Amino acid sequence: QYGRPKQEHQHVRYNPLRDDWVLVSAHRVKRPWQGQLEKPPPEDVPRWDPKNPLCPGATRANGEVNPKYEGTFVFPNDFPALHPDAPEPDDSDHPLFRAAPAQGVCKVMCFHPWSDLTLPLMSLPEIRAVIDAWAELATELGASYPWVQIFENKGAMMGCSNPHPHCQVWASSFLPNEARLEDRTQRQHLSEHGVPMLLEYAEQEARRKERLVVENADWLVVVPYWATWPYQTLLLPRRHVCRLQDLSDSEKDSLASIMQRLLIKYDNLFEVSFPYSMGWHGAPTGAFLEEDCRHWQLHAHYYPPLLRSATVRKFMVGYEMLAQAQRDLTPEQAAERLRSLPEVHYKKRAE
Amino acid sequence: QYGRPKQEHQHVRYNPLRDDWVLVSAHRVKRPWQGQLEKPPPEDVPRWDPKNPLCPGATRANGEVNPKYEGTFVFPNDFPALHPDAPEPDDSDHPLFRAAPAQGVCKVMCFHPWSDLTLPLMSLPEIRAVIDAWAELATELGASYPWVQIFENKGAMMGCSNPHPHCQVWASSFLPNEARLEDRTQRQHLSEHGVPMLLEYAEQEARRKERLVVENADWLVVVPYWATWPYQTLLLPRRHVCRLQDLSDSEKDSLASIMQRLLIKYDNLFEVSFPYSMGWHGAPTGAFLEEDCRHWQLHAHYYPPLLRSATVRKFMVGYEMLAQAQRDLTPEQAAERLRSLPEVHYKKRAE
Ligand SMILES: O=P(O)(O)O[C@H]1O[C@H](CO)[C@@H](O)[C@H](O)[C@H]1O
Ligand SMILES: O=P(O)(O)O[C@H]1O[C@H](CO)[C@@H](O)[C@H](O)[C@H]1O
Repeated sequence: QYGRPKQEHQHVRYNPLRDDWVLVSAHRVKRPWQGQLEKPPPEDVPRWDPKNPLCPGATRANGEVNPKYEGTFVFPNDFPALHPDAPEPDDSDHPLFRAAPAQGVCKVMCFHPWSDLTLPLMSLPEIRAVIDAWAELATELGASYPWVQIFENKGAMMGCSNPHPHCQVWASSFLPNEARLEDRTQRQHLSEHGVPMLLEYAEQEARRKERLVVENADWLVVVPYWATWPYQTLLLPRRHVCRLQDLSDSEKDSLASIMQRLLIKYDNLFEVSFPYSMGWHGAPTGAFLEEDCRHWQLHAHYYPPLLRSATVRKFMVGYEMLAQAQRDLTPEQAAERLRSLPEVHYKKRAE
Repeated sequence: QYGRPKQEHQHVRYNPLRDDWVLVSAHRVKRPWQGQLEKPPPEDVPRWDPKNPLCPGATRANGEVNPKYEGTFVFPNDFPALHPDAPEPDDSDHPLFRAAPAQGVCKVMCFHPWSDLTLPLMSLPEIRAVIDAWAELATELGASYPWVQIFENKGAMMGCSNPHPHCQVWASSFLPNEARLEDRTQRQHLSEHGVPMLLEYAEQEARRKERLVVENADWLVVVPYWATWPYQTLLLPRRHVCRLQDLSDSEKDSLASIMQRLLIKYDNLFEVSFPYSMGWHGAPTGAFLEEDCRHWQLHAHYYPPLLRSATVRKFMVGYEMLAQAQRDLTPEQAAERLRSLPEVHYKKRAE
């Protein structure tokens, strides 16, 4: 095993945003796989299905009828994990039994009226409309809630229960774990180094290039140095931007473009509609709008599960759950692979 | 929604062992599910298959032939994530690009010579043999490595690629994330409260009873107050025990018994071989054997993915990955459900 370059030997890498480590065992992707195979996504989703509650004109679980929407469409989640008015739990009687109140709202946002479309197959103006709707929801819900989590579960493998292109927005009265963690690490970095962590990181990666996937004048996408999922990426602005709602018009256009390029590469990797969970992190809102949040830098995380092919995923199980995340190829190998893929979607290639 | 008891309304609970929170949205388990269905495990696994590298007498990937073992059998993982002698990575040139060396060994341990058996179907002496082998490996590898992670991935859903009953043991030259986290929280609890966290917790749960699943003179199993997976459990000794290798003979017998009772209930829940990842956490070893580790209490975590049935799992995806773990029924509901199940395995019930 000594013939390989050093970074292809096992080592651990530090994730400064989560203050934890990942075990990198580069060559493990070569072992044979006899475990579970995933079902590729259905190819025959009807464009319009009156029985699908996300479609224009369909009836939802609560009896409401969707409008015949033609762009994006936002409505309340019919089975929300957060209600605006849950009663407070009883006072904790012991430090090991601590509960706290939680209020919030859960919304669903359809990206497009068609069920057989996904973001990488949408046009730039259509993706731009999604970004505008995100920024509006972030502003609206952020007026009162400290955290507005925009996230997309794409593909059945990622727990998505409806093929219609959509995302969710859960706003909460509390800062969730990941928000508190990133708040702490970014605050500490700014106070120690005088520059926001992810602004410095983007500058470094733009210069180092080996983990770059796509870039344009305003944005870059990297497989972060500390990535845990095989093809995980981090989407970062080059400018210091605290929140989605702070983006300029032209930054929203260039965001639509870089998202499209990234997602086409993702689909092209295994020639399959690439599953992932993604979401936006930015400075907290609500009462935090009055506070100094300059340590924050807006970013999106993409967490895709596939490892070797359309049907073989990475399982984050035993060792990962009990000890530490472990990856089977280096972030540099993953970035190189994504970088080398064409920017034309495999479904649109001329035969 | 105001007709329900208070704790069945959404709230957040604190996990003192991981210093984070879980969102409890009790009634969400009632929403309809149209997403991915899991394949139940195969029912026709042959007892002995010469092509299965975990079987007695079979040839492994490296050409070695397994002995005709009759009890447990330990051998080196043929595709290890950790080697004992990987070269050190280059020095980090920037605080956002930090790597560190990692050495270790990965072993596989078969529980039994038969491929068609699982722990809940094994006899008490057979389970006791597994516990003895665990304690031996913990002692042997713990002589030099600071962390020895024993874990079992059970079921294809949990990334297990071979139906033969087995677990893995990964020993590392570093303390993995979860170990560092539990070390910090337990250390702080002892210094603030004068008693090990999980010793106090077990006493409280033994008295409160509402989250108890099974108990005997030496052990108890609870759905912890802060459980994130639907039927997650925590297995705890009643006595202060730092490490697996510190268990007395009779504690190992009573451990075999309580494991058997828990795992039979798990299988009975949805009448299926219940998938999970489980693993042991105890005081660190290696150089830590010389240090004061009294803040540690030995325990096992069971993380099972199933939510509603043998085919519908909980997905820890978008919101959970980007914001915070969220559960769809209360830990008390889960404990009550497990508690009420028979202690005779559904496959052994008289017809
Ligand atoms: O070693 P196995 O069983 O082939 O692999 C399984 O467990 C490992 C340790 O949790 C994980 O890293 C793998 O993703 C999983 O498939
Ligand atoms: O709300 P959905 O899409 O039905 O549900 C999906 O996303 C949620 C938020 O990440 C998860 O809690 C669910 O486990 C998952 O199946």
